[in-house]
Amino acid sequence: MILRWDGQVPHEQPDELAEEEPLEIRVRGRAVSVTMRTPGHDEELALGFLLTEGIIRSPRDVLRVAACAQNEDGNVLNVVLSPYVPVDFDRLTRHVFASSSCGLCGKATIDAIRSQFPPVTSDLVFDAETIVRLPKTMRAAQATFDRTGGLHAAALFDLDGEMLVLREDVGRHNAVDKVIGYCLRRGAFPPDRHVLLVSGRSSFEIMQKALAARIPVVAAVSAPSSLATTFAREAGQTLIGFLRDRRMNVYANSQRVRFQALDTDG
Amino acid sequence: MILRWDGQVPHEQPDELAEEEPLEIRVRGRAVSVTMRTPGHDEELALGFLLTEGIIRSPRDVLRVAACAQNEDGNVLNVVLSPYVPVDFDRLTRHVFASSSCGLCGKATIDAIRSQFPPVTSDLVFDAETIVRLPKTMRAAQATFDRTGGLHAAALFDLDGEMLVLREDVGRHNAVDKVIGYCLRRGAFPPDRHVLLVSGRSSFEIMQKALAARIPVVAAVSAPSSLATTFAREAGQTLIGFLRDRRMNVYANSQRVRFQALDTDG
Repeated sequence: MILRWDGQVPHEQPDELAEEEPLEIRVRGRAVSVTMRTPGHDEELALGFLLTEGIIRSPRDVLRVAACAQNEDGNVLNVVLSPYVPVDFDRLTRHVFASSSCGLCGKATIDAIRSQFPPVTSDLVFDAETIVRLPKTMRAAQATFDRTGGLHAAALFDLDGEMLVLREDVGRHNAVDKVIGYCLRRGAFPPDRHVLLVSGRSSFEIMQKALAARIPVVAAVSAPSSLATTFAREAGQTLIGFLRDRRMNVYANSQRVRFQALDTDG
Repeated sequence: MILRWDGQVPHEQPDELAEEEPLEIRVRGRAVSVTMRTPGHDEELALGFLLTEGIIRSPRDVLRVAACAQNEDGNVLNVVLSPYVPVDFDRLTRHVFASSSCGLCGKATIDAIRSQFPPVTSDLVFDAETIVRLPKTMRAAQATFDRTGGLHAAALFDLDGEMLVLREDVGRHNAVDKVIGYCLRRGAFPPDRHVLLVSGRSSFEIMQKALAARIPVVAAVSAPSSLATTFAREAGQTLIGFLRDRRMNVYANSQRVRFQALDTDG
């Protein structure tokens, strides 16, 4: 029960909250990540995480995903990799892409990632008219958000604006990992003919995850950070921000957006 | 330059973005954290992080904070601790508070933290009328947000609603760490007669950081997660959500909020 107050007498009432529980992802018996997440689609989260961290490259790298039998809450997942997949545990526990030399800066961080993931070169073009309709489609599908007000969302759309998948999570990186994990599980990887839409801001890490999944266009309802923008420019990704009220800003690689004056050209 | 489009002909214009750069925090020559943050108030961020992770307990534990001389970007900070402060590097690289046994769940996570930080027992009482005014005060002070639209904010207020400090960052945990670090640096620690206000949602980690700093009341403009609420109830913290438009929900320990009918009692 919670106490609600609107300036008059406070009253008690039940309230639904966005669920948050830790998830530990294990590879070869070792924990490679512990993250606070909204339970559900955990296998997608694990696969998406391993893909965007560069540990796996395709669904073939994973033999099986199973909840740890000793953990009744389902909060520990064992991902069984093919024996041919090398895992650098040291790099993982060192916070992955941050340079550990004294050359730590945004540029060094971007360089480290570029050495692992090549730039996006897709020559697809998306209609601006299609893109401005995406937030409304995503919002309509966000059942949980309407109930709790506490979740980030990420969704993939094709060239026609059709939504392939929507995932919600208390952590926005988790929502993106789940979307990518969905593609891995459903034979829809890489989603390289799609737009990734996120409900909040776009950060460096969102762009890095999109690059790992070969997604050519990332759109966000709010602002990007400076490093997200620099990253997108160097990685060949189209980055759209402030996508709302039929408006948008394009921060990088605008050649993938077709702007049409609203006239008879059709 | 960015491309702006509002349904007509797109046009180029300059745009200010929220800055995002990595910061590495080193203790005894070893990296204990690499986080993406908005540059500025980095020493506060480092001190706040070390305090909320349970590594330091008071300003006396820190002899000196200095930028690493080999890193010209100022993105590596060395925190020189008193030789009497023990540091468990293993625990730090294991993602701190997550239980590494197979008993991983929200409850186990909370228990692990409770063993390190005792509950808040403050008997202070804050006026609801004062609390509902806080978001407006914080928003008015958020100069950067108005420019870039991309930053989270955290601020501390006293019983009269006076703002002690406001910090903004691309990461909301960083904004909270900076606020706590400010208190450590200015002889204002612990801020145990204050309300912490955050611009977005309240998560488990926000509540954990507030507990480490002995802050009795946490308020957020948006929703809390389920684990934030459970945590607050067990840790004796008052948790307020949806603090906007002169309304609020109190999710835990409402005894610290005095609700007055708007009549002559004043």
